[in-house]
Amino acid sequence: MTAPPSPQPKTDLPPEFAFIRRHFLALAGPAALNLQDDAAVFSPPQGREMVMAVDAMVENVHFLPTDPPDTIGRKLLRCNLSDLAAMGSRPEGWLLAFARPPHITDAWVEQFCAGLAQDQARFGLSLMGGDTTSTSGPLVLSLTIVGSVLPGQAIQRCGARAGDGLWVSGTIGDGALGLRVLQGVEPPLADPTGHLAERYRLPQPRIGLPLHGLASAAMDVSDGLVQDAGHLARENALHVRIQADQVPLSAAARALGPAWQEVCLTGGDDYEILFAVPPEREHQLLSCPSLPTPYGVVPVTRIGQFEAGVPGVSVMDGAGQPMHFKAKGWSHL
Amino acid sequence: MTAPPSPQPKTDLPPEFAFIRRHFLALAGPAALNLQDDAAVFSPPQGREMVMAVDAMVENVHFLPTDPPDTIGRKLLRCNLSDLAAMGSRPEGWLLAFARPPHITDAWVEQFCAGLAQDQARFGLSLMGGDTTSTSGPLVLSLTIVGSVLPGQAIQRCGARAGDGLWVSGTIGDGALGLRVLQGVEPPLADPTGHLAERYRLPQPRIGLPLHGLASAAMDVSDGLVQDAGHLARENALHVRIQADQVPLSAAARALGPAWQEVCLTGGDDYEILFAVPPEREHQLLSCPSLPTPYGVVPVTRIGQFEAGVPGVSVMDGAGQPMHFKAKGWSHL
Repeated sequence: MTAPPSPQPKTDLPPEFAFIRRHFLALAGPAALNLQDDAAVFSPPQGREMVMAVDAMVENVHFLPTDPPDTIGRKLLRCNLSDLAAMGSRPEGWLLAFARPPHITDAWVEQFCAGLAQDQARFGLSLMGGDTTSTSGPLVLSLTIVGSVLPGQAIQRCGARAGDGLWVSGTIGDGALGLRVLQGVEPPLADPTGHLAERYRLPQPRIGLPLHGLASAAMDVSDGLVQDAGHLARENALHVRIQADQVPLSAAARALGPAWQEVCLTGGDDYEILFAVPPEREHQLLSCPSLPTPYGVVPVTRIGQFEAGVPGVSVMDGAGQPMHFKAKGWSHL
Repeated sequence: MTAPPSPQPKTDLPPEFAFIRRHFLALAGPAALNLQDDAAVFSPPQGREMVMAVDAMVENVHFLPTDPPDTIGRKLLRCNLSDLAAMGSRPEGWLLAFARPPHITDAWVEQFCAGLAQDQARFGLSLMGGDTTSTSGPLVLSLTIVGSVLPGQAIQRCGARAGDGLWVSGTIGDGALGLRVLQGVEPPLADPTGHLAERYRLPQPRIGLPLHGLASAAMDVSDGLVQDAGHLARENALHVRIQADQVPLSAAARALGPAWQEVCLTGGDDYEILFAVPPEREHQLLSCPSLPTPYGVVPVTRIGQFEAGVPGVSVMDGAGQPMHFKAKGWSHL
């Protein structure tokens, strides 16, 4: 047998492989098999159930082309982590589909991945696999998140009963206001500390919120508090009544005055957790309205109550009168 | 307490929810929790490892706007199933991110989902979750596939040794030729039985190919046989020599004559399995070159051999001379 001829085709990697190796290999965990294989392989953590979700973000729909690429990566991961948090589950890994238009430069991708590296370390997970492709349209990012939970401990949207309190973590409305700060509405919205813009760009997924044994139902607030509370109520065949003046607002949001209340209540991009608590479990929370997480103590607030009645949501003002909103919340189609 | 006021906002579902319910609910398995929750929850099959991959398809890049929507859905699922097949693993479920441009009608989505329903039944898996969003660009579909395998039995790309034979399932080149049939090259390519077009639109993922205990390494052929064999060789730090006249072609491909050989060898869209077999395990395959799967007996063919040498691939013609190709294979960036 003769010596092998020169390899043909040449050994340079096709652009796709070089791209993956250059940008994504540093993010890969053991399950990713160096991103060289057809699929990731991992052992599910002993005695736990798997929790999985996918969330896509599209340029000009979910983020602004002028947003810093590192915060786009981090927001993409955090929105998915918020889904895990709502189920009371912990992160294990993630996969990414990246449809790249020509205007997304290597420098952009580098910053995007730097943001992901920072947050995957913070939240204790790593890249398992992915796919890159070209597109003539806007950048489309689809992230699949993989988590786990002890059997039977996933908190679902169904489970609330009439009489349960409606609670929410953190503050509501900052993200929606932050978007308007960044979009530059007229007259300009005051955001002297940058808190609102920061909350739009970098939501805080409530990973580790101890919902098991406390909440009868939970979901994350991403499409607007009022709309999402309506979903939670309808999926439990209940009515939920929200007291608008109980909804927790940040100092930055309060400073803008009551004209912006509707945006806070319906605007979306909160990534807080909305959850139902049976009355017998509310006493402790009412006396100390906060919950511990590995990322700090998270304030929680009782904003309403589930009751029998027409399935859906109503919002009452401080005088006990029903409020009406122009916006119904965010729909993705 | 007064009776609850009329729900506000109204109880009609936002378009996104109605869209998901109308089209995707029928595909959902138990893990999907009726597609109402933030994430899917499932128990990993006892004593098995999880296998996961994501593949995206973009309109005008991976499929033609004129392709029937049902075959687009089926091809998307089958390409992902091919990744599982290459790892010797079995399907468990899938998630979908759907970035929908305005020109994708409800009727289109209905046919798309009908195709998915047909194939998820055929291959024994169900929808676990997903996300839908709007886009101003082309339709982007990202499918995450979830499979499982007995611990340690996943077949990876690394593991081949010098002396191992290079084998491939089925036939090579039909998909690439089928694309050219459908694109309408001049002069037109003969496809009297429609076999080539069918193979482009509906690859046959080799789920259940019994690679464990047989193959030392495997991958699926999606970007062109020559390029993918080069990857397999380089990832094992080996040279692989392919005998072009041993590469199995369908009767429809052979009928087109030798002018189309290069397209077959480099064109991609095969979704066959390329695998390495140590010499001591080849005897049985050489005497009966086929393998059983739940979807029928699959012919397999020895097309070359791994050897020490410059990492990469060479392709020899029937006279033992190295062949040179214009096309290097398919890159997605």
